[in-house]
Amino acid sequence: MEKLTVNKLTKKYGQKVILDNLSFQLAPAKIYGLLGRNGAGKSTLLNLITNRVLSTSGEIKIGSHNINDDDHELGKMYLMSEVDMYTKRTTIKRMMELADEAYEHFDFKNAEQMLTDFKLDQNEIFTNLSTGQRTAAKLVVALNVNADYILLDEPVLGLDANHRELFYKELIKAFQNKPRTFVLSTHLIEEIQQLVEHVIIINDHQIIEDADVESLLKKAYAISGPAKDVDTYTDGLNVLYTETMGSIKTTYVFDGLDEQRVIPDRVKIDHYDLQHLFIYLTNGDEQHD
Amino acid sequence: MEKLTVNKLTKKYGQKVILDNLSFQLAPAKIYGLLGRNGAGKSTLLNLITNRVLSTSGEIKIGSHNINDDDHELGKMYLMSEVDMYTKRTTIKRMMELADEAYEHFDFKNAEQMLTDFKLDQNEIFTNLSTGQRTAAKLVVALNVNADYILLDEPVLGLDANHRELFYKELIKAFQNKPRTFVLSTHLIEEIQQLVEHVIIINDHQIIEDADVESLLKKAYAISGPAKDVDTYTDGLNVLYTETMGSIKTTYVFDGLDEQRVIPDRVKIDHYDLQHLFIYLTNGDEQHD
Repeated sequence: MEKLTVNKLTKKYGQKVILDNLSFQLAPAKIYGLLGRNGAGKSTLLNLITNRVLSTSGEIKIGSHNINDDDHELGKMYLMSEVDMYTKRTTIKRMMELADEAYEHFDFKNAEQMLTDFKLDQNEIFTNLSTGQRTAAKLVVALNVNADYILLDEPVLGLDANHRELFYKELIKAFQNKPRTFVLSTHLIEEIQQLVEHVIIINDHQIIEDADVESLLKKAYAISGPAKDVDTYTDGLNVLYTETMGSIKTTYVFDGLDEQRVIPDRVKIDHYDLQHLFIYLTNGDEQHD
Repeated sequence: MEKLTVNKLTKKYGQKVILDNLSFQLAPAKIYGLLGRNGAGKSTLLNLITNRVLSTSGEIKIGSHNINDDDHELGKMYLMSEVDMYTKRTTIKRMMELADEAYEHFDFKNAEQMLTDFKLDQNEIFTNLSTGQRTAAKLVVALNVNADYILLDEPVLGLDANHRELFYKELIKAFQNKPRTFVLSTHLIEEIQQLVEHVIIINDHQIIEDADVESLLKKAYAISGPAKDVDTYTDGLNVLYTETMGSIKTTYVFDGLDEQRVIPDRVKIDHYDLQHLFIYLTNGDEQHD
């Protein structure tokens, strides 16, 4: 397996910039989170990578091969899309057969077990299913298709908590059985924090973070206490957000804490989670105290 | 404000039982979670309470007044529904005016602030909005309508993490400014654990829990350690779920821990969260180790 490289990728619709000069790499056998607000361009990016939409400029390569119209390279990638392209006669069984015809070596055995777990019948027509059932059916295909890069756009749409948990477990199992790269584009950041190793965050049409989750969370500190003490302590640090409740101020920092920084008695230092880091990084002018 | 009482409520469609003999009360000025798996009948219940759907048997009262066809009692309740009933010409402004005409004293001032926060223009046509924007517009109406019981069906559908956080803050603000009863029917249980005081859990068409969140979580213990020690410790307790990783077994208990129960050195006792409690209580035969 070779790296997937996105280089200076730009997409415009007319004058409207959707993605502005994105460069990043996806490594083999790694689970990624692709995070961004509604309308940030995540789905467009996934469609560009799989050549369903053409870029305005820039290139996408697997190893040294440009993916454009290269069926061999495109065959290494699978996109579970938000948009459903199945006809009104397509059964779940047929969806699996199509994935087998296009990518070969589809894992029918594991797929059938997953269908049972999701309480789906493979003879059901896809378009007759509810939102949650459609998502489940698409996940059964995506986790059993034979591709090196599996891109999941909104993989938990409409799923209840039980089926989301089932999906996360099946994803880990699929990854362990056959390490491949998965990219999860989802709004349920709290739930995937433990699952993804690396995140790419898109905001205002650009990449604002491309880093391991662990290294990001190492810089996510919540400093709370009397306002004066908190302000003294956080002076010079990169502050994302502050809130005040009664006499207690909490300042959310995204920065390394200086080792020499003295910890005052009256200030409490906690870590905060990936979902809140994302919110503070992407809220722009929406500071709400 | 008076209590809302649901008494022996049953709903069937033909021979199919959707809700089977439900009895519970909603107290004034309290935030509830209504939890259940996809298809459990949550939306049907909310529609029954607001008289949009007729029950097969049973009664719904506010204080001592049956709500059936009693406009005065129905005027105390507002349902933010999954189903959108606005015409193709209805603007957000008109949605607010309709809520004002039906319930009076709509809080236009706060609604306008919320529209700004959600980046919505009140002259936009509702049906032209995206899923997340429709949800936001409906929330602006629901949190500013003058009703004693406000029922929110899927209040965060399609919202990104930032707008979900904004909604939770606005809900707390609305509740504090004017204490009313809110019922949240959502699949994002982890996010509402801190927000709701009481939950009603529906499973297999019946209520399986109707209790304060605090009292439920007090009984939610995860016991982990070597299998033998864990089994000895949990003997006689109500076990919901077990999992084994390597030589470590974790048993998820839903029970009071006997005070005399000796804590062995080799067993670790933690609490687990509401979302996992819900999953284990409603998974039925879906045990996955």
